[in-house]
Amino acid sequence: MSQLKNDRLIRALRRQPVDRTPVWIMRQAGRYLPEYRAIRKQAGSFMALCTNPELACEVTLQPLRRFPLDAAILFSDILTIPDAMGLGLYFVEGEGPRFEQPIDSPAAIERLPRPDPFERLDYVMQAVRRIRSELDGSVPLIGFSGSPWTLATYMVEGGSSKNFGKVKGLLYGQPEAAHALLARLAEAVTDYLNAQIESGAQAVQVFDSWGGVLSPAAFNEFSLTYLQQIVDGIRPGPDGQRVPIILFCKGCNGHLEALADTGCDALGVDWTLTLGEARRRVGDRVALQGNLDPAVLLAPPEVVRTQVAATLDSFGDGEGHVFNLGHGITPDVNPDHLATLVDAVAELSPARHGGR
Amino acid sequence: MSQLKNDRLIRALRRQPVDRTPVWIMRQAGRYLPEYRAIRKQAGSFMALCTNPELACEVTLQPLRRFPLDAAILFSDILTIPDAMGLGLYFVEGEGPRFEQPIDSPAAIERLPRPDPFERLDYVMQAVRRIRSELDGSVPLIGFSGSPWTLATYMVEGGSSKNFGKVKGLLYGQPEAAHALLARLAEAVTDYLNAQIESGAQAVQVFDSWGGVLSPAAFNEFSLTYLQQIVDGIRPGPDGQRVPIILFCKGCNGHLEALADTGCDALGVDWTLTLGEARRRVGDRVALQGNLDPAVLLAPPEVVRTQVAATLDSFGDGEGHVFNLGHGITPDVNPDHLATLVDAVAELSPARHGGR
Repeated sequence: MSQLKNDRLIRALRRQPVDRTPVWIMRQAGRYLPEYRAIRKQAGSFMALCTNPELACEVTLQPLRRFPLDAAILFSDILTIPDAMGLGLYFVEGEGPRFEQPIDSPAAIERLPRPDPFERLDYVMQAVRRIRSELDGSVPLIGFSGSPWTLATYMVEGGSSKNFGKVKGLLYGQPEAAHALLARLAEAVTDYLNAQIESGAQAVQVFDSWGGVLSPAAFNEFSLTYLQQIVDGIRPGPDGQRVPIILFCKGCNGHLEALADTGCDALGVDWTLTLGEARRRVGDRVALQGNLDPAVLLAPPEVVRTQVAATLDSFGDGEGHVFNLGHGITPDVNPDHLATLVDAVAELSPARHGGR
Repeated sequence: MSQLKNDRLIRALRRQPVDRTPVWIMRQAGRYLPEYRAIRKQAGSFMALCTNPELACEVTLQPLRRFPLDAAILFSDILTIPDAMGLGLYFVEGEGPRFEQPIDSPAAIERLPRPDPFERLDYVMQAVRRIRSELDGSVPLIGFSGSPWTLATYMVEGGSSKNFGKVKGLLYGQPEAAHALLARLAEAVTDYLNAQIESGAQAVQVFDSWGGVLSPAAFNEFSLTYLQQIVDGIRPGPDGQRVPIILFCKGCNGHLEALADTGCDALGVDWTLTLGEARRRVGDRVALQGNLDPAVLLAPPEVVRTQVAATLDSFGDGEGHVFNLGHGITPDVNPDHLATLVDAVAELSPARHGGR
C-alpha cells in the first residue's frame, strides 16, 4: 500500500488522519456519463461489457479522468456469482437482470457448484489486474460483491422483485433450504473477494442492497450471519496487510450497531439517517461512508454545494468519514453536478481534519 | 360510538383496556380474495370500482364475511384527491397509477383547485354512508387518505417512481414551489378526512407510503410539517368525540418519536422494527399498529401462527396494540392463511390483556 500516491480512502477506512475527506461515488462508472454510454453501445450488451476485461477497465477509469476522485471501483455486476454458478444471467432492456434457471427447489440449491473465481470468474480478475496496472498507484481500487442474502433474492425470484414473495416464502417456509443456499453463497462470496484481493483490489465492499426488506429477526438470521462469515474469511492482501472491508446494507439503519460488531472496517450509510446520528450510535468502531441523497444531484449546483456542506457538518470533526452518495448515482444526473460535489468536498472538508 | 357492538379497535387506539388485541389488515379488501376479483371484473376498471359506491361498499364488506376482523376500511384509492384536482387518474394494467396531467411547473401548482369533498369526491362519501349503514354497528369503519408528500410524489412523477427524481428535484431545487403544493394538499387531505368523518368514518388513517425515501431533514420539512397540519385540523365526529388518527409512514422507523409528537393516536409500524423496540421508544403516548411482514402469509399456517405469537410477544403485555401487517396484504396470499392469522390473534392475545 506504501506505493499509493493517494491513500486517503485507505486511511479514512482505517480511521487514520487525512488532509481532507476522501470521496468516491457508488456507480461512478455508469450511464450518467456519455463516454460510458458509448462504450456500452460498442460492447453490445451489459454482460458483454462486464465480461470484457479491456472494456471493463476502460469504463472503470472514465470517471477518474473527469473528476479528482479518491478511489476507483471495479466495474462489474453484483450477479456475477450466480451466473458463474450456472443460473444464466441475462438482461432485459429497461427491466433489469433475469436468470434463465432460477432456484426453484432444495434440489436446485444442492446442485449449485462452488465456482473457482479464477476459472468461471476469471474475466473479473483480469479486469482487476488491468485496472491496477492502469491506475499505477494513483488511487486505490475497490473490489466488491453482492451479499449472500441479496444474491439469494435474485436467484430465487428469478430477477428483480417488489415484494420478495418467493425468497421470503423460502425463508419462512423452508428455513433449512434458505440456510443451505446462503451458506453456499457466503463461501462463494468469500472466495470471490479473496480472489479480487489477490488480483489487486485494495479495499472491498459488500452490497446488501435488499437487507432492508427483512424483519430484524430475519435480517439477523439470514443476512447478518453470512456477512459475519465473509468478514471473518477475508484474507490479507499480497503485502500482508489487512484489506479494509466496507459493508453497505441499504435500508438497514436499524442494524448499524450489529453490522459494526462484525469487525468490518466501515459501514455505508444510506441517506435516511444523518451521519451524526450514525456516528453517535457506532462510535469509533468503524468508519462511515456516505450519505448524500443521490437526488440532490438533480438540483442546481448551489444546492449540491449546500447539501455537501450539511453532510460534512453532520459527520463533524475528526477521522473516519468517506464521502459518498447514500446509494448509486442515477442515469439522469448532469456530470457537471457531480463535479460540483467533488469540488465541494475538496474545498469544505479540510476544516474537518484540522486544516483551514 | 356507544352503539358499536365491537369497539376493540377504538379502545385499543385510545390505549384503553380490551379483552383481546383487535386485528384488521391493510388492503383486506383486495385481490387475494376471489370474490373481490369477481367484482373488480364486473366493474370493468379499478377506478370504476372506486367510484361506484355500491360496489365499493360490497368489496369493503367482503373480508368481514370471511374473517372475524375488528374493523372495516373504506375501499378506495389513495389518489382520489389529485384526481379531484383535475390531474386525470388512470391505471395501466400491471403498472399502477398514472396521471394525464402531472404537475410540471409552479404555474400548474397555482392552478390546483381545493376540491369540495362533497362534490368531486362525493362518491367516496356515499360509499362511507352506505358501508356504515350495512355494518350496522358491528365493527368501526376506518377512513383514509394518502399523505401530502405521498400524493405529491405521484402528482409530480406522473405515477409510480423508483428514484423520485422529479419530485425530489422540485423539493431540492424549488422548495417554495414544493411547499406551495404540499400546503394545498394538506388542506385538501384535511377537508377530505373531515368529510369522511362527517359521513361516518370512526377512525382515520393517513398513509405516507413514500415518507421513507426522504432524508431526515427533508422528511421533517416536507412530510412531517403537513402531517402535523392534518392532525391539528381533524374535527370531532358527529357524536362530538375525538376520532382516532393513525399515521402510517412506511420506512420511517427513524421518525417514530417525531410522529408520536404530532398528537396522533396511533402509529403504524412496518415490519423492519420490532414492536417492542417501537414501544420502548414512543412509550405510552400513542398506540402501535402492526407489524407482521406480509410475506409471512406465504409460509405454511404453522409458521403464520408462530410469527403472530412473536409479534404479540414483541409488543408485550398491556394496552395500545392493534394487530395488522406491516404493509398491505399481497395478491398472492391464500385467504386460508389470513384466517389462520386472525384466529391466532384471537386465541393468543387475551393473555396479553389480563385474560387466560
